[in-house]
Amino acid sequence: MLLKKVISLGEIAAQLSAKLIGSPDTQIEGLATLQTATSGRLSFLSNPVYKKYLSTTNASAVLLNEEGANEFLQEQRMATETSQHLNLLVMDNPYLGYAKLSALFDTAYDFVPGVHTRSVIADSAVVPASCFVGANAVIEDGVTLGESVYVGANTVVGRNCKIADGARLWANVTLYSGVKIGLRTIVHSGAVIGSDGFGNAQHDGNWVKIAQLGGVTIGDDVEIGSNTSIDCGALEDTVIGNGVKIDNLVQIAHNVHIGDHTAVAGCVGIAGSTVVGKHCIIGGGTGVAGHIEIADKVAMTGMTMVTKSITQPGLYSSGTGVEPNAKWRKTAVRLRNLDDLFKRLKNIEKKLGL
Amino acid sequence: MLLKKVISLGEIAAQLSAKLIGSPDTQIEGLATLQTATSGRLSFLSNPVYKKYLSTTNASAVLLNEEGANEFLQEQRMATETSQHLNLLVMDNPYLGYAKLSALFDTAYDFVPGVHTRSVIADSAVVPASCFVGANAVIEDGVTLGESVYVGANTVVGRNCKIADGARLWANVTLYSGVKIGLRTIVHSGAVIGSDGFGNAQHDGNWVKIAQLGGVTIGDDVEIGSNTSIDCGALEDTVIGNGVKIDNLVQIAHNVHIGDHTAVAGCVGIAGSTVVGKHCIIGGGTGVAGHIEIADKVAMTGMTMVTKSITQPGLYSSGTGVEPNAKWRKTAVRLRNLDDLFKRLKNIEKKLGL
Amino acid sequence: MLLKKVISLGEIAAQLSAKLIGSPDTQIEGLATLQTATSGRLSFLSNPVYKKYLSTTNASAVLLNEEGANEFLQEQRMATETSQHLNLLVMDNPYLGYAKLSALFDTAYDFVPGVHTRSVIADSAVVPASCFVGANAVIEDGVTLGESVYVGANTVVGRNCKIADGARLWANVTLYSGVKIGLRTIVHSGAVIGSDGFGNAQHDGNWVKIAQLGGVTIGDDVEIGSNTSIDCGALEDTVIGNGVKIDNLVQIAHNVHIGDHTAVAGCVGIAGSTVVGKHCIIGGGTGVAGHIEIADKVAMTGMTMVTKSITQPGLYSSGTGVEPNAKWRKTAVRLRNLDDLFKRLKNIEKKLGL
Repeated sequence: MLLKKVISLGEIAAQLSAKLIGSPDTQIEGLATLQTATSGRLSFLSNPVYKKYLSTTNASAVLLNEEGANEFLQEQRMATETSQHLNLLVMDNPYLGYAKLSALFDTAYDFVPGVHTRSVIADSAVVPASCFVGANAVIEDGVTLGESVYVGANTVVGRNCKIADGARLWANVTLYSGVKIGLRTIVHSGAVIGSDGFGNAQHDGNWVKIAQLGGVTIGDDVEIGSNTSIDCGALEDTVIGNGVKIDNLVQIAHNVHIGDHTAVAGCVGIAGSTVVGKHCIIGGGTGVAGHIEIADKVAMTGMTMVTKSITQPGLYSSGTGVEPNAKWRKTAVRLRNLDDLFKRLKNIEKKLGL
Repeated sequence: MLLKKVISLGEIAAQLSAKLIGSPDTQIEGLATLQTATSGRLSFLSNPVYKKYLSTTNASAVLLNEEGANEFLQEQRMATETSQHLNLLVMDNPYLGYAKLSALFDTAYDFVPGVHTRSVIADSAVVPASCFVGANAVIEDGVTLGESVYVGANTVVGRNCKIADGARLWANVTLYSGVKIGLRTIVHSGAVIGSDGFGNAQHDGNWVKIAQLGGVTIGDDVEIGSNTSIDCGALEDTVIGNGVKIDNLVQIAHNVHIGDHTAVAGCVGIAGSTVVGKHCIIGGGTGVAGHIEIADKVAMTGMTMVTKSITQPGLYSSGTGVEPNAKWRKTAVRLRNLDDLFKRLKNIEKKLGL
Repeated sequence: MLLKKVISLGEIAAQLSAKLIGSPDTQIEGLATLQTATSGRLSFLSNPVYKKYLSTTNASAVLLNEEGANEFLQEQRMATETSQHLNLLVMDNPYLGYAKLSALFDTAYDFVPGVHTRSVIADSAVVPASCFVGANAVIEDGVTLGESVYVGANTVVGRNCKIADGARLWANVTLYSGVKIGLRTIVHSGAVIGSDGFGNAQHDGNWVKIAQLGGVTIGDDVEIGSNTSIDCGALEDTVIGNGVKIDNLVQIAHNVHIGDHTAVAGCVGIAGSTVVGKHCIIGGGTGVAGHIEIADKVAMTGMTMVTKSITQPGLYSSGTGVEPNAKWRKTAVRLRNLDDLFKRLKNIEKKLGL
């Protein structure tokens, strides 16, 4: 945190609609884990594994659910010599409470509106006075920024991009021309949106480039991680739905559609023209083939290799787990003979009349 | 598209050496798929799956092969009440025709030559008047640009780089010193060329950096995707052949050689000193070990794990396909016992005298 | 190499504490492999595979171990008509010698201190006169640079970052606010350090962003590859130990700790809150799940899928090796029936009374 924000426990309880057991005047100046919290910090208990830290935490207050609160209070009553007065904030989903509180204490997204004298803004660009444009940022012809848009230092916004109110492009982001970014969407540094899709026709053993004439449309409340690439469409737009969360170093190829509220973890690659449903969760390092469809509410564990459409919601996986190398080598040899094994088994079954 | 280009069907037919069945004066102002085309758009039929859209498309013309054209014309003659007059452009490889046409309608690569007043160009750099250098671009000592080279905004061209005629570096590209880029080669945003190879010698449990003294040589008509990294060689150059197409987020380690006209899809990693042949196609997410050789005309499906040299052309694969997580867990357990299984089978065969 | 450095063999021998068999006055102006070296170049023999090139190399001197030297000298004595006078530098670990020499001949890291007039430096930033700040670099409020720090062109250093003596940020690097970088640490272009961790709480099917309030602490003598992303912690810091070497396109998620002297090859992803030990070697393309622990001295081959903690040192692997696609398809089908196979085997064993 760069600047200290101080909020009273009473105000926090009101904002979270949480029940406060303790003193509303206690001043909270930040968040911390139960183990590391010092006085003035608020902590949370979401995963029961950490329950053991409740009795010894130095936090001034803890966010937890009814069950956790009751258990703690009972233990306190039984304890004979406790001098601790831990304030409790009780709500159904303490992790959600923590998420909401984290925003209150975040200062990284605060900014004073203004255009840096060393930015380069085309005359035809629309930049409301509520926006921030950092040093060496470049905003090209025909760009329209909404209210309170933040454009970080050294970021390039290509011709005719439209950035909706409250969106934030961190430093060193690149938008090619014609990219549309929705309300409050966050794009992290190094992300590139609108680069050419990987389209080439073969001709006499050479590749002939297919010009990529489509754009990219990104919805509201999206977050795009650092060094992620999203290509423009070949003829129409690549589309990222509302509320989609994309982690770092993700590749989204041309013409991909990602449904609303889907989360894509780091190092994922999604090949061209694939349609991913809503409310999906794609684990890190997963690869999704091109020209397929993934149904709504599909989850994939990390490093899954998806070569065909998935039509039913549920959890999917592929790959083989880690083993000591010596054992893995043996298994690898056996795997190569798996087809042979099946034939030998068949032969035995025949022999035995099975 | 940013600017509208309008071209007559007659001119298109001439440029593609295609046979025109229809009106040469029809004005075409863009491309579209059969399903989404409106009047004034030209579409193409390459994949027979889309044949069904021919009778209902609103496109003004369609690019297709002889067989498709004959079939369509026969159906039209049989239809009793068709008022549609769809112009046909007939050629052997409609997908190649589409590729060529796409370039005609592309305006993203158009530019007016000139050097932005806010670029930073070393006195010793050679920048012909036919070049474009964008805002905040940095061109260091000893750089030589050929004719009509485009250097995007905020791109950095390190000392002594040589960029051949017609090459294009989009915004926010980084070239380290001494990188050579061939004719008409395109480098997308976020790409880094010439960063240090990953070379370290071990000494008493610590790593001692090996300075990377080589460069990078990139051929003609290459395309390099966004956020792709190509390291310089340790002593000699990392080499990318002519006509090579590299997608986004690809890692090319030091001393790698990639043969002419090879295509490398997104999220691929190729480890140090590996030599990849000509006309290869490396599927997305594939990993290629270091110090090995891949023959010409080798293709790999996505996410292949290549741990040894491949000496014969053909299609290669590895990995296990996606399954519902519950089934995958069972298979995973079984896999761990595969060696044991083979021994049990052997035992049975012995028992049965097989 | 951009500038020629010339060093006498005698001086090199002294610097490496190597035994010189030959002329100390021989002038060396660069390094090369045995196969490509010309006169004036020094080469090295580390891998015995290359021994065969010793007799024909045009290098002026070769770095090799005692055994290699003895063997070579004996062969020379036996040869009847050799006119070659190859100087030998003898030491225990010639590869380490090569590493040290490479630094002597490297000029890419040389710089003349100074601040480019086109950089943007906040008044509150501390920039000693021994530093280099390139064109269009942006150094924000509260930043402290140590002595001889290099900040490349178009690099952005966010508020309150602390960069220790001798560290180098190449061009187009992005540091978010509050990042701490240790002594002599190198960060390559396109790397992003301190971007938000991927934290979201679920609420009614939507994602609620968890603000990432922690920072990033990077140790001394670290190297971070191009286009690598290291996220800031959720509440505390993401930590990279001393001497850690990270290759290109690596994803380090929030709250990860990487122990001293661990090497992480390209395209690796390490998920949130995972703790990696000291002296580990993580092969390229490996994925490590979140919230697990990897012991010290663990090595993983490339593309390993690590889904659980590893408590013992050693070499680990996963995945299936590359095969011709036709064979792979057969194996894939068999794999899907592996559970059934085990049941059939069990049945046979029962039948046979095994």
